Amino acid sequence: MNNFKIEGIVAYPVTPFFENSSQINDEVLKQVIDLQISSGANAIAPLGSAGEGAYLDDMQWNHLVDKTLEYVAGRVPIIIGIAELTTRAAVRKAQYAQAAGAHAIMVSPFSYQKLTEPEIFQHYQTISNSSALPIMAYNNPSVCGVDMSSQFLVEMVTQIEHVSMIKESSGDIHRMHDIEYLSNGTIPFYNGCNYIVLDALKAGAQGWCTAALGLIDDLPKRLFNSYRQGLFEQAETLFKQQLPFLKFIVKNGLAVTVKAAYELRNISVGYAQPPLLPLTEDMQKQLKDLLSMTLLTNT
Amino acid sequence: MNNFKIEGIVAYPVTPFFENSSQINDEVLKQVIDLQISSGANAIAPLGSAGEGAYLDDMQWNHLVDKTLEYVAGRVPIIIGIAELTTRAAVRKAQYAQAAGAHAIMVSPFSYQKLTEPEIFQHYQTISNSSALPIMAYNNPSVCGVDMSSQFLVEMVTQIEHVSMIKESSGDIHRMHDIEYLSNGTIPFYNGCNYIVLDALKAGAQGWCTAALGLIDDLPKRLFNSYRQGLFEQAETLFKQQLPFLKFIVKNGLAVTVKAAYELRNISVGYAQPPLLPLTEDMQKQLKDLLSMTLLTNT
Amino acid sequence: MNNFKIEGIVAYPVTPFFENSSQINDEVLKQVIDLQISSGANAIAPLGSAGEGAYLDDMQWNHLVDKTLEYVAGRVPIIIGIAELTTRAAVRKAQYAQAAGAHAIMVSPFSYQKLTEPEIFQHYQTISNSSALPIMAYNNPSVCGVDMSSQFLVEMVTQIEHVSMIKESSGDIHRMHDIEYLSNGTIPFYNGCNYIVLDALKAGAQGWCTAALGLIDDLPKRLFNSYRQGLFEQAETLFKQQLPFLKFIVKNGLAVTVKAAYELRNISVGYAQPPLLPLTEDMQKQLKDLLSMTLLTNT
Amino acid sequence: MNNFKIEGIVAYPVTPFFENSSQINDEVLKQVIDLQISSGANAIAPLGSAGEGAYLDDMQWNHLVDKTLEYVAGRVPIIIGIAELTTRAAVRKAQYAQAAGAHAIMVSPFSYQKLTEPEIFQHYQTISNSSALPIMAYNNPSVCGVDMSSQFLVEMVTQIEHVSMIKESSGDIHRMHDIEYLSNGTIPFYNGCNYIVLDALKAGAQGWCTAALGLIDDLPKRLFNSYRQGLFEQAETLFKQQLPFLKFIVKNGLAVTVKAAYELRNISVGYAQPPLLPLTEDMQKQLKDLLSMTLLTNT
Repeated sequence: MNNFKIEGIVAYPVTPFFENSSQINDEVLKQVIDLQISSGANAIAPLGSAGEGAYLDDMQWNHLVDKTLEYVAGRVPIIIGIAELTTRAAVRKAQYAQAAGAHAIMVSPFSYQKLTEPEIFQHYQTISNSSALPIMAYNNPSVCGVDMSSQFLVEMVTQIEHVSMIKESSGDIHRMHDIEYLSNGTIPFYNGCNYIVLDALKAGAQGWCTAALGLIDDLPKRLFNSYRQGLFEQAETLFKQQLPFLKFIVKNGLAVTVKAAYELRNISVGYAQPPLLPLTEDMQKQLKDLLSMTLLTNT
Repeated sequence: MNNFKIEGIVAYPVTPFFENSSQINDEVLKQVIDLQISSGANAIAPLGSAGEGAYLDDMQWNHLVDKTLEYVAGRVPIIIGIAELTTRAAVRKAQYAQAAGAHAIMVSPFSYQKLTEPEIFQHYQTISNSSALPIMAYNNPSVCGVDMSSQFLVEMVTQIEHVSMIKESSGDIHRMHDIEYLSNGTIPFYNGCNYIVLDALKAGAQGWCTAALGLIDDLPKRLFNSYRQGLFEQAETLFKQQLPFLKFIVKNGLAVTVKAAYELRNISVGYAQPPLLPLTEDMQKQLKDLLSMTLLTNT
Repeated sequence: MNNFKIEGIVAYPVTPFFENSSQINDEVLKQVIDLQISSGANAIAPLGSAGEGAYLDDMQWNHLVDKTLEYVAGRVPIIIGIAELTTRAAVRKAQYAQAAGAHAIMVSPFSYQKLTEPEIFQHYQTISNSSALPIMAYNNPSVCGVDMSSQFLVEMVTQIEHVSMIKESSGDIHRMHDIEYLSNGTIPFYNGCNYIVLDALKAGAQGWCTAALGLIDDLPKRLFNSYRQGLFEQAETLFKQQLPFLKFIVKNGLAVTVKAAYELRNISVGYAQPPLLPLTEDMQKQLKDLLSMTLLTNT
Repeated sequence: MNNFKIEGIVAYPVTPFFENSSQINDEVLKQVIDLQISSGANAIAPLGSAGEGAYLDDMQWNHLVDKTLEYVAGRVPIIIGIAELTTRAAVRKAQYAQAAGAHAIMVSPFSYQKLTEPEIFQHYQTISNSSALPIMAYNNPSVCGVDMSSQFLVEMVTQIEHVSMIKESSGDIHRMHDIEYLSNGTIPFYNGCNYIVLDALKAGAQGWCTAALGLIDDLPKRLFNSYRQGLFEQAETLFKQQLPFLKFIVKNGLAVTVKAAYELRNISVGYAQPPLLPLTEDMQKQLKDLLSMTLLTNT
């Protein structure tokens, strides 16, 4: 374990492309990052699920890291997402992130052949041995094909030097109580399942990892702040206001829906990489209504 | 559709590495390929699940294609496995395989964000538009995170120019009847789930895709031949003889178990890439017994 | 184990009710039984899934047993289905079946709280101790909420006196190979998943448990006979002819679809017990087409 | 909808039997009910999962209803659990409960053939038409083989006269937000998954349905009261104190573990009905430790 800690909103920028291209649009990346920081981001975390991290080739990935560092320019810490099939590739990325000046890495296992716990443990251990960056162990069974129990996550934090934080995206609130209970409240954990955010904060989460910040203005930050200031009714109201939008983006594919929502807000982030398809027109219409409804209430 | 067809045993070589390294051992690759051809392979299919195709970087992957072409040297056709998250990467590999002189590609979708049928369809369509090689659509839900129904597979064969064969690895025999029924027997399909091979042949499969050929001598080929010659009792006997071994390698991770079995036969193929771990000693012992038992009966 | 054995078609009559009533229609029951026997039934098995055994109260259940015995009148053996939550109720029914003169019982576990293997074992053991009838252990995970492995089923046959046969309805053909392999071919097993019947016969099944006999004339029996006489092409043709119908009744709820099909053939079996609802009109139309198509080919 | 409402702890008595018998032990039933009422029960709910409601025959079931009414003697309201395969049996029980003087019924669907939403809807509708008692619609997918969405549950409350409350036992906290959101906070809902109770209260649950009351003294009631009085830290402490025990009884089968715990507390409730087996000695030891640990902290 080490001492880096983050609290609040960990914001996920998308990876913007020029239209119908897989070339990264740097200018729009800057625009998205600026929007998230001005909306109250406590950290910027590129290359997660919303950032299509798993879909980029090495050069794109490196470029994204470099440009994020450049555009954030020290305003907030940066946490780099790493989801790789091989330990070798994950190590390379961890080292790149460290060399570039990132503050932490968020690592999820990713599987073709299903991984056993000793295999996952070794994966994190090797990364920890190869880089000095603090590691957020990230459990996201719905996309990674691997489900890490709370007990196993806590063991890794206890036993692997740089693994010091947990991000839980399974959506099962009970896992957070388990982390809290098993670590006696000593391990900072973060919520990655947008639509249970309020429960997660109540369960002791230190922060909320979300692509919604900026996209729906500062509403996620206001929710977090209200809760932390003990304004529970206000937090409840803010939560209900965002809930339909949050559910929509989780249920219909984060990268695709978030990119469509940026377009609706006139920020041209382009499309997610094929084979991912853009949102259908019908779904775009639903999303537009949800977005309007959510933003209208933000006064 | 086009005219390339294969019948019999499609053999999967592993990707051999030098010990505790991720450097490909060309000499052992040649040895494995020669063993499989001398054991009766009707085609060689590198870079499938047993070949750790999804775990190699681009340079390793290219190297494996080139060396396979060189070592097979026209003795049998070559089918290259492609399992990529992005369509762009799959297209690049399809084109590389074609340029190198391979005879066909075996393509499975692979998913981080879950794919819809239109997304999968587009994936195959784009590959078909970019390469002239015949495509074997490969359904392997347990590792790819995507399950394609028989109906959808048949639609792709009917509607996408170069998709002309199906490999079914779900282990659900009924899917094969569906393919047969829905295509009126016109689409060649292949079994990829080792332990139901005899049922698959009875259901009309044109071939059996397996990493076991060579590893257990020519037993898989003898099973196929017996069945095709109408020697049903002999086929049954050969099947029962191989079944415990086939089940073991499927249930315990193909790449890892097959590599361990090669080592037991004194062919030094090295370990599967981390995070995959070598077979535990206890499991190695089980495997050794199964291997001995299976080979002893081959007289 | 004991010596009762059955081979061929085990036919499942429905439990006919007067229209919009839960009163059993004895006359129609006789009509259904006669139809199945004249269509070649090798045994009659009331009170299975198609017979709504789990939905009847004790008096209805007893009545059904008595009337079946009376109407079959010794023409073929009778196997009584028992699916009970408590061992006590299962024992009562086993004893009733024996006293009434049935030849065997077909017992499936049924669960509210999920059952462990020791609990299931004890269930069968207690029944075996309480009745002298041979027991067919029946695995049907989709409705019983319990999935018994082939290994466990074989253990029960080996260790529990009256458990002597297995009915497999999971639809996973590999389970049958396991039974065959683990028992060295000594345990008779039966297929309960209509749409894999031909694979099951090829895998060594002694019989086919089906509600389709009679409903589609003698087609199921002709399929069985063709296969057993070594007329494999004819068996294949007969299988393909019945397949769409068989799939429809399995996929859409056996009791409801089979009852609807009897009505389409002008045998008034009434409706399945609420909360089960009759087939929608749209589905009835599909069923009518499938039924016509299947019967038309029977010449 | 109608006006009956309950708030607080809905306590589940077990159904006590004489040792190794299926005869109900009335005296111990009275003892359990008295213990739960003196521990702060706001309602008594016999014949739920912990009460083995689904395992009793009609006479036992009636007897349990009668005796519960007699022993509670008006001190708190009584809610009778009904989980039946047929609508007919559920209606009979609803009418019996009403005639006996119960205040409400808690109805879960139960399935052999999987039920569709129209079938479930009709089940509740028919019960509502046959009895004047308020109905708590009870979703418990892990034992009932049916999972009702929050949307569907809310629809039933809106459209069926006597369905006025929801009990959610899926353990998915998000469902409670959905109920709250979809009904605009107008439908009272109750938590049935012990180990998420604190999240449930935070999400707006009116009460907690639990077999733990009495068994671990008044701890569940103190948790509820603390939360309602705004003593959040105390509620948190009380929750953590009970959590390991609550998890154990949920994960290892409610009826079996709760009965074992009563025995450990020297209240002879006997064993759950076969095929359910008593807790193994090893598990009893674990349970004893958990129980001591939980009770020790209650000072």
